[in-house]
Amino acid sequence: MEKISRTKIVDLMKREDFGAMVNVKGWVRTRRGSKQVNFIALNDGSTINNVQVVVDLANFDEEMLKQITTGACLSVNGVLTESVGAGQKAEVQAREIEVLGTCDNTYPLQKKGHSMEFLREIAHLRPRTNTFGAVFRIRHNMAIAIHKFFHEKGFFYFHTPIITASDCEGAGQMFQVTTMNLYDLKKDANGSIVYDDDFFGKQASLTVSGQLEGELAATALGAIYTFGPTFRAENSNTPRHLAEFWMIEPEVAFNEIQENMDLAEEFIKYCVRWALDNCADDVKFLNDMFDKGLIERLEGVLKEDFVRLPYTEGIKILEEAVAKGHKFEFPVYWGVDLASEHERYLVEDHFKRPVILTDYPKEIKAFYMKQNEDGKTVRAMDVLFPKIGEIIGGSERESDYNKLMTRIEEMHIPMKDMWWYLDTRKFGTCPHSGFGLGFERLLLFVTGMSNIRDVIPFPRTPRNADF
Amino acid sequence: MEKISRTKIVDLMKREDFGAMVNVKGWVRTRRGSKQVNFIALNDGSTINNVQVVVDLANFDEEMLKQITTGACLSVNGVLTESVGAGQKAEVQAREIEVLGTCDNTYPLQKKGHSMEFLREIAHLRPRTNTFGAVFRIRHNMAIAIHKFFHEKGFFYFHTPIITASDCEGAGQMFQVTTMNLYDLKKDANGSIVYDDDFFGKQASLTVSGQLEGELAATALGAIYTFGPTFRAENSNTPRHLAEFWMIEPEVAFNEIQENMDLAEEFIKYCVRWALDNCADDVKFLNDMFDKGLIERLEGVLKEDFVRLPYTEGIKILEEAVAKGHKFEFPVYWGVDLASEHERYLVEDHFKRPVILTDYPKEIKAFYMKQNEDGKTVRAMDVLFPKIGEIIGGSERESDYNKLMTRIEEMHIPMKDMWWYLDTRKFGTCPHSGFGLGFERLLLFVTGMSNIRDVIPFPRTPRNADF
Repeated sequence: MEKISRTKIVDLMKREDFGAMVNVKGWVRTRRGSKQVNFIALNDGSTINNVQVVVDLANFDEEMLKQITTGACLSVNGVLTESVGAGQKAEVQAREIEVLGTCDNTYPLQKKGHSMEFLREIAHLRPRTNTFGAVFRIRHNMAIAIHKFFHEKGFFYFHTPIITASDCEGAGQMFQVTTMNLYDLKKDANGSIVYDDDFFGKQASLTVSGQLEGELAATALGAIYTFGPTFRAENSNTPRHLAEFWMIEPEVAFNEIQENMDLAEEFIKYCVRWALDNCADDVKFLNDMFDKGLIERLEGVLKEDFVRLPYTEGIKILEEAVAKGHKFEFPVYWGVDLASEHERYLVEDHFKRPVILTDYPKEIKAFYMKQNEDGKTVRAMDVLFPKIGEIIGGSERESDYNKLMTRIEEMHIPMKDMWWYLDTRKFGTCPHSGFGLGFERLLLFVTGMSNIRDVIPFPRTPRNADF
Repeated sequence: MEKISRTKIVDLMKREDFGAMVNVKGWVRTRRGSKQVNFIALNDGSTINNVQVVVDLANFDEEMLKQITTGACLSVNGVLTESVGAGQKAEVQAREIEVLGTCDNTYPLQKKGHSMEFLREIAHLRPRTNTFGAVFRIRHNMAIAIHKFFHEKGFFYFHTPIITASDCEGAGQMFQVTTMNLYDLKKDANGSIVYDDDFFGKQASLTVSGQLEGELAATALGAIYTFGPTFRAENSNTPRHLAEFWMIEPEVAFNEIQENMDLAEEFIKYCVRWALDNCADDVKFLNDMFDKGLIERLEGVLKEDFVRLPYTEGIKILEEAVAKGHKFEFPVYWGVDLASEHERYLVEDHFKRPVILTDYPKEIKAFYMKQNEDGKTVRAMDVLFPKIGEIIGGSERESDYNKLMTRIEEMHIPMKDMWWYLDTRKFGTCPHSGFGLGFERLLLFVTGMSNIRDVIPFPRTPRNADF
């Protein structure tokens, strides 16, 4: 077969030099046609669009043609031709075909219309489908948008550790990491396990957040962001929970709560706009196939300023709704940790746009949040989105050493783990703020998928660590 | 204090609107001067350069001035002024100073000239030093360069799982991940631990490589790269080993070994050029303070094409060197896994430029590499660099199902873990290639640092998981 430099299908679709000899490589999606002419839809993953390869059967070997089945991998030399049908502009009139890899009828993606549950069982093959190709190209693009946004603003990408010996959010939800021989655990006189011989010489776990280390970095480099895997050992088998997920956590020295809100709003609008601008084909596919309101919802969040509202005002609105007869599953009262139904009522029913809720009761928020002068609330901010509920959670941090210490003692957080964190407040403390965005939450929003297991390549959930 | 919008020091240095009122915020690096005028070197992490704040002592409160010590955090309003001295172009004549955070004399970074060992013990504060500020800004920039390079080439960033139940490189080097109660392990009649109740329902570990999952993605999306944390539970206390490190692994459908070499060379040159172009101040600082040959070495790898040489030829050169009297610590013979001294001899002494060594004996390489027709070698490629030795390791992959199976059986790799990987060869197999780059290896090269613990914010090594 003549050696011609390969053109990716995404690039081929832009070419207009009809008549040129080209080479395309990819996998057969479908094959149809008559006894004289066949049409092969070939996909190489570079785009959701297939290129149509036109095969004049008389010119090719019969045995070779038999191997052109769904899922087979081909290399095709042919003439770039203007397409007469609807859809794509260019097609390829095949001159030479090489079957690089055959695919027999045990291939699980033979026919269309598989359930999402079934596709999760073959997560190693599902990126070959239109749906998951689209989702993972969008996933890539959102990651690029995130890096681009922060880099252009002068933030530094900072790698916080995955394995940690600190434990500020409760060991019950953490995965333990060990190299000990579980058949021969060393114990002391009281029967307690001795971690001397474990890899790190002490008990270690997988991180639940890089924020505390991010604060160390922000008070040195000024503005940083993390973007890495994060772990929760919660035994929650729901469409919204993963044991392993990716999180983005910017942290900025000298930013107060207002600037933190500005940053969060600008950031998430940038990501959504990027998806609309750079993933148009994939977003349109998902809109048409899964979620007819997707594009409208994406454009919706870009249109207006987000509402900024204190928690106390939010509770009033919810209480008024209850008074007027609106039924919530969970009760509404000042002090309650809002449920998703409450958040979505504010966003979808009351304001009809995203809401940043601020100044939450301190009892339902983390120890490190800056305490307001009312003695009751802290400078937390949650960004609430249509369909998703909370998509971002953040706060201005408590920068006063004594106030922070008091809160740590009130909440019985083990001090031995915290000395290095407290040093940021001891040595040149400064106002600073940050927030966390669950990457998969963002992806649920921009793809319209309804199960979080379908926006990460290989989901880790209770009883599932396949592939 | 008057509210003036803050200017980052990196941006202030570019301003020429002398006479303007500006606000800068940052941490005091040094303070010196006379009884009338003091000079404060202020740094905000945005650049290695400090801004000089000129303080006419008579205009300020004495108690406030006492608080301006090394490490204190200040907000300064003042007049942007053209600097008369050497060095920076702009300085700030202070009009108002607010001490945001004091810093007493227990601050460990009071004086200069701390040992690297000491700075590792205060890894939570070391990003505030010139050296580590430079290293972590370069680290950020290298990450950005990597994403930019692959994105512009149409690769998709793909998140392979961190927690895995597969184990292809030997469990001895892996960290086990568990939620089991180690005080009450469930065992079967034979005394074997039963993992039914563990989080994933089976034994799970931290990944040692995302390559196999990357191949799944490449044979669907065409060209992908991973960039994520990777783990080795090796008990190696050396300047070149980390238990937790970041790795980049591109994988490309239809690329053969030559195109894989082209990609690796273009990629690493892109990163090095990015460092020279975008981190000039930081690289220059590290060149001047730590490694006078740094910039020359960086420019050196950009100048010429890398040598491409089969392993067998490389062994001949090394044997000739031995014959001529060159002493190596480890023996040289066909079949040996080259030591760093051998690799560096080829690069630094013989060719005086980077070398891509190919076609290694199959016995010393992984099961998935494409077997050559000689029956003895595989299409491996290692990129060897001055000072570092191997910086990239890759290969064309074996795409033939039967050949791959034979090798898997020869090497006694447990098949039950591999069914999903083998599906790529069963269903539309294709030639494909990829490689892995240890991110911290790249950083050792571009920063000139000599210990890998100094190019990652919080190193994880045997008996160390602090911060």
